[in-house]
Amino acid sequence: MTETPEPVSVRVDLGPRSYDILIGPGLVASAGRHIAAALPRARALVVSDETVAALHADRLLAALESAGIGAALLTLPPGETTKSFDHLIAVVDRILAERLERGDAVVALGGGVIGDLSGFAAGIARRGMQFVQVPTSLLAQVDSSVGGKTGINSARGKNLVGVFHQPALVLADTDVLDTLAEREFRAGYAEVVKYGLIDRPDFFEWLEANRAAIFSGGAARVEAVAASCRAKAAVVAGDEREDGDRALLNLGHTFGHALESVVRYDPARLVHGEGVAIGMALAHRFSVRLGLCSGQDAGRAEAHLRAAGLPTRIQEIPGDGFTVDALMDKIAQDKKVSRGALTFILTRGIGRAYVARDVAPDAVRDFLNQELAA
Amino acid sequence: MTETPEPVSVRVDLGPRSYDILIGPGLVASAGRHIAAALPRARALVVSDETVAALHADRLLAALESAGIGAALLTLPPGETTKSFDHLIAVVDRILAERLERGDAVVALGGGVIGDLSGFAAGIARRGMQFVQVPTSLLAQVDSSVGGKTGINSARGKNLVGVFHQPALVLADTDVLDTLAEREFRAGYAEVVKYGLIDRPDFFEWLEANRAAIFSGGAARVEAVAASCRAKAAVVAGDEREDGDRALLNLGHTFGHALESVVRYDPARLVHGEGVAIGMALAHRFSVRLGLCSGQDAGRAEAHLRAAGLPTRIQEIPGDGFTVDALMDKIAQDKKVSRGALTFILTRGIGRAYVARDVAPDAVRDFLNQELAA
Ligand SMILES: NC(=O)c1ccc[n+]([C@@H]2O[C@H](COP(=O)([O-])OP(=O)(O)OC[C@H]3O[C@@H](n4cnc5c(N)ncnc54)[C@H](O)[C@@H]3O)[C@@H](O)[C@H]2O)c1
Ligand SMILES: NC(=O)c1ccc[n+]([C@@H]2O[C@H](COP(=O)([O-])OP(=O)(O)OC[C@H]3O[C@@H](n4cnc5c(N)ncnc54)[C@H](O)[C@@H]3O)[C@@H](O)[C@H]2O)c1
Ligand SMILES: [Zn+2]
Ligand SMILES: [Zn+2]
Repeated sequence: MTETPEPVSVRVDLGPRSYDILIGPGLVASAGRHIAAALPRARALVVSDETVAALHADRLLAALESAGIGAALLTLPPGETTKSFDHLIAVVDRILAERLERGDAVVALGGGVIGDLSGFAAGIARRGMQFVQVPTSLLAQVDSSVGGKTGINSARGKNLVGVFHQPALVLADTDVLDTLAEREFRAGYAEVVKYGLIDRPDFFEWLEANRAAIFSGGAARVEAVAASCRAKAAVVAGDEREDGDRALLNLGHTFGHALESVVRYDPARLVHGEGVAIGMALAHRFSVRLGLCSGQDAGRAEAHLRAAGLPTRIQEIPGDGFTVDALMDKIAQDKKVSRGALTFILTRGIGRAYVARDVAPDAVRDFLNQELAA
Repeated sequence: MTETPEPVSVRVDLGPRSYDILIGPGLVASAGRHIAAALPRARALVVSDETVAALHADRLLAALESAGIGAALLTLPPGETTKSFDHLIAVVDRILAERLERGDAVVALGGGVIGDLSGFAAGIARRGMQFVQVPTSLLAQVDSSVGGKTGINSARGKNLVGVFHQPALVLADTDVLDTLAEREFRAGYAEVVKYGLIDRPDFFEWLEANRAAIFSGGAARVEAVAASCRAKAAVVAGDEREDGDRALLNLGHTFGHALESVVRYDPARLVHGEGVAIGMALAHRFSVRLGLCSGQDAGRAEAHLRAAGLPTRIQEIPGDGFTVDALMDKIAQDKKVSRGALTFILTRGIGRAYVARDVAPDAVRDFLNQELAA
């Protein structure tokens, strides 16, 4: 057995709700020790999905046991449809059936679906239990496990129901990403690129130089995850409940959500990160059209996404349904719409994104017409 | 039409989540003005139960309309069983169907059931909407509408699922209590007495002198509600999330909940405030038995509850099932049990209650044996 290096630690500063994100290889195997240190004497319910549980749950349960943490396992079906009231009720019921108390922990072992669902359950069972994230997808490690947004979907839209409930600890084991499907890894990478494009031009440049190494694993991967967590933690610390600057994290997401919505969240056609990749490319090209951003910067953003194997044009999505009307309709429904005005994240160049609160719907319409005709 | 006096205002101090409780006659009719002042430009969904809606919803909707607040009404069945996941989902769905945004308001018009349920829905729809309480039962005015505890029941126990979600405003219209059943008024009065018994001996003395006036309405009623809100607000401000001193508010509740649980929450046999009245009398007699409190003080507490028409002995509850074993079992299940030790609120006299964290189960058992034999 090789020595496991000390994990990188990123602090999320939220006053009494502050916590650490530990990032590095082997963290599932050492999870018991870290959780026992953060939550002495806590018992645990591990929530996972069938795919992830089959690959990683035994090691996590063994780690908890060896640290003296009594733990039960609840396994749910994989996929976005698991983020429902039915599964929420099932997780809450299991928490109560295990007679866990407020100081005990719900441990999410999985991607963003498991993290969002079980974080929500932890936020409402006994009006708030301890919560630990063990994110296993790249997207979950760099995005969904950081910041305390939890929730489920409703028939009326995605992520419309939930709470802000910060974890006590996040353990991002970069080794578990080795079992993640290549397409899911790429999708998560779109969110990594996003942090560079928002306000970290140096990080974006570093990504351009280190992309292949990040995909292979090792130190570059740890650094990419850590830098992403630092970026998200900084935004979250400044705006815990998403009233202001946190909106920057939606770069690429207004367009991306519209695309996901048109394909009805069919992952065979489009997964979230792919939608974000196309959305970010669109946001840059839209900014060029509005005279805000140089064509060179937009091209550079797009080239990097393409090099990572990510789509950047609506036409790359298989199947049809992408009319301007359909997209405008979804954009207007987006929950980031505030009192009628359209809010978009636009950019003045690589790492110079900003929140534009009254984008004229007609400008968006014209732009989409041009995109779809191209 | 007589002039409506200015309402009494009680501030709940919770930093950025601070809010006012307005108390007085006629507040339903002036609700629109107060809500518009607290939440400019907000739209509203009013949630109520059938009984309360029939009596008071028209006036509230008219008040909102005249203040330019667009409002819809959702009416649910009355009763404790409404605090369920099914009804929670229905309220959330209606909030989303009305396309309310985060700055819009869920307005609870009803007793504690409607307040707890719709506060929970407001806490999770879009991860937190504005929330306004218009409590219509005495219990809701002096207790459940203050402090931000919201929630529903689970098959595994009462109030086990919920969030802390503070309202933006509470409007306690003391006139609406005129339509409340006498028995419900008395039950709410038990919680008023509780504040005196916890740590306000002067208030308890004032209640002894003004009980009849409070029941009749008018200035004494306003003052009793306001003093109760001040008492609860002070405790809540010191311990928003119920980690410490807020436990004092459970005076009478550990016994009370056990009694409610034995009768399976059948309101024909026992309503919550009656359970609390008996529970407070038991807590005082138990404290006497433990040598903590004088028999004289316990007798005075009991006499006041009896004068208000409230029960003070287990034997007054119709029907059977009150064995020591059944009660001890419920007490052990109570969610205020922390890691095995029994926590009780005991007292050293009128207005001198304290949190006792390791009461020996055998002492409780012996005491209950004596009570049931008496
Ligand atoms: N809370 C937030 O702030 C936030 C932010 C972004 C996204 N999200 C949410 O996150 C979700 C998407 O997250 P996701 O992409 O992780 O989805 P996911 O949880 O569905 O995981 C994607 C797929 O990868 C599998 N998987 C995960 N880890 C694996 C591993 N190590 N090995 C093999 N397979 C593995 C899963 O079983 C699943 O099939 C969405 O629901 C989205 O709304 C939340
Ligand atoms: N959140 C908290 O901090 C807190 C504190 C104490 C109690 N509670 C909860 O509060 C609930 C009990 O509250 P409650 O006693 O108000 O119950 P409730 O809401 O069921 O109201 C009692 C009855 O009175 C009726 N009613 C209410 N106002 C009326 C009016 N003005 N005129 C005529 N009828 C009226 C209702 O229709 C109902 O039938 C319980 O669920 C309890 O768990 C919560
Ligand atoms: Zn995203
Ligand atoms: Zn009570």
